Amino acid sequence: MTERDMPSLFDVIAARPHVYRFLKPTPLYRYSGLSELIAADVWVKHENHQPVGAFKVRGGINLVAHLSDNERASGLFTASTGNHGQSIAYAARAEGLRATIAVPEGANPGKVAAMRGLGAEVVFHGRDFDSAREWIEGVARERGGRFVGSTEELLINGVGTYALEIVEELPGVDAIIVPVGAGSGVCATAIVAKAINPAIQVIGVQSAQAPAMQLSWSAGRPVSADMSTVAEGLATRIPFENTQRIMRKYLDDFVLVEDDAIEEAIVLLLEHTHNLAEGAGAASLAAAIMLKSRLAGKNVVLVMSGGNLSMEQLHRVLAKKSRASPPARS
Amino acid sequence: MTERDMPSLFDVIAARPHVYRFLKPTPLYRYSGLSELIAADVWVKHENHQPVGAFKVRGGINLVAHLSDNERASGLFTASTGNHGQSIAYAARAEGLRATIAVPEGANPGKVAAMRGLGAEVVFHGRDFDSAREWIEGVARERGGRFVGSTEELLINGVGTYALEIVEELPGVDAIIVPVGAGSGVCATAIVAKAINPAIQVIGVQSAQAPAMQLSWSAGRPVSADMSTVAEGLATRIPFENTQRIMRKYLDDFVLVEDDAIEEAIVLLLEHTHNLAEGAGAASLAAAIMLKSRLAGKNVVLVMSGGNLSMEQLHRVLAKKSRASPPARS
Repeated sequence: MTERDMPSLFDVIAARPHVYRFLKPTPLYRYSGLSELIAADVWVKHENHQPVGAFKVRGGINLVAHLSDNERASGLFTASTGNHGQSIAYAARAEGLRATIAVPEGANPGKVAAMRGLGAEVVFHGRDFDSAREWIEGVARERGGRFVGSTEELLINGVGTYALEIVEELPGVDAIIVPVGAGSGVCATAIVAKAINPAIQVIGVQSAQAPAMQLSWSAGRPVSADMSTVAEGLATRIPFENTQRIMRKYLDDFVLVEDDAIEEAIVLLLEHTHNLAEGAGAASLAAAIMLKSRLAGKNVVLVMSGGNLSMEQLHRVLAKKSRASPPARS
Repeated sequence: MTERDMPSLFDVIAARPHVYRFLKPTPLYRYSGLSELIAADVWVKHENHQPVGAFKVRGGINLVAHLSDNERASGLFTASTGNHGQSIAYAARAEGLRATIAVPEGANPGKVAAMRGLGAEVVFHGRDFDSAREWIEGVARERGGRFVGSTEELLINGVGTYALEIVEELPGVDAIIVPVGAGSGVCATAIVAKAINPAIQVIGVQSAQAPAMQLSWSAGRPVSADMSTVAEGLATRIPFENTQRIMRKYLDDFVLVEDDAIEEAIVLLLEHTHNLAEGAGAASLAAAIMLKSRLAGKNVVLVMSGGNLSMEQLHRVLAKKSRASPPARS
């Protein structure tokens, strides 16, 4: 970080040429079915259409564009249980660098296979994300490698390019609803939106079954919380301070939705958009349904942050929904 | 048509600025899971990421750019049971034109709702596509309106822009596998690929439960056939002569796959790409699995032509798959 105390719109604009070297802008589509449901003009920003299926890859690509020769030679080291690791693996491969990713024992086999498919070395270590992270930080130090944190400024700057795409394509946007895990997505969105038009409401959403980031924002100080959500993209137990600081400055609201509402939103998105959202990616719709009266008649953008739902999760979600209301016979 | 007897690469290049006024290029991604499955480098062209969820919208957008003032004033008239109608509705709205779409009684309610959501007037008429089409052609004639056929040259030219994106992004492509309904997609792909590199294999695929286009191509003359496929995007009973003519000139092969194999491919695509494909959109993977030995080690592009699978179809496909091999407990 320079003397500036947080990322700015300028940093996002500067990230753009790096991001678009390897990635395309994603679609922003209005869906009439969702618009009727919320009684508003509802648009979906399709970050699930990214390679690796999630918005984070924009940050990874921006990060690898800014490495020193030493860092490039030493390769990247990071810890992840999911999309962040895939993003770093993808970005490393794009630049021909090595990536070593620590994952906790029992990590999602599909996501592990995806990281390995992208050429990363995946090492299982420890019972949860935090112990995997501590271990790999030590490895990176020993080897003189570049450790990549989850919410680094270079990642936030790259991620912000999706927010810029939203505002450029839909200048009349009234509200953007963003799922919050570590907070890089919502911070990047708020920085861009508020710099261009402070009237744009930026609303974060986390699961009530993983509320640490929301409780910390509400309290104005770090609060850890129990975590049992099915949406691993929202599963933050210990809040990240650098993203909290940005959120306290810029965020208009931050809501919690139940895991049940997230699972219903996954089904609604399949039905109305024919897109598979992971839990985090569907949380923005769950929030819009909860905030319906406030959003009436407005231009609302739901960030579908990722689509990496496993088949087991999909089966469970559809089975639950079937018990609630059986599908028509075909 | 001019004195040229069929569309050319030049026509596709000329369509490009019109198409990109309203649409973005779609992603072409390599999937390591599918590549292992086929023992080749397997790429998916994501036409399911289009607005309206299917490739056809490229054709609709190109068509509306070429209307006379009279045609613009009279509006568009067409018949459809699915994606073609949504494409015309979308294109008409983009240019501020009226669209009237005839659908057979009992048409898919989700697709009807989508056409209406795009502002089209939808009229139910007749028992099947052919009777709806005959009726709306008469209406268009009476009102001096512009009837839009399913395989018009302007549609093929617009659709060809996806093939150009494939060859530009992956010049080393060895084979492109394309689902065939009326044939506009496979014809456009063949015209572009063969003009740029005749060594690129272009392979069509239809369902064995709707083989009319494949049988006609094999026989070298129009052959009608029974039709019972679950993949409405492949459901052509009476072959289209203008696309047959192009296919006879350019196509390397044309295979049939069973509906069961298509449904398995839908599940594999959900698992490995986290994308929802409709039956037609998954047929290219089903064909690749069948042709595995021929494709070994090659750069293979599967066109995921559309993603408009209904919830009823999704439930059925997953239920079938569960009986075959139950998902791991979660």
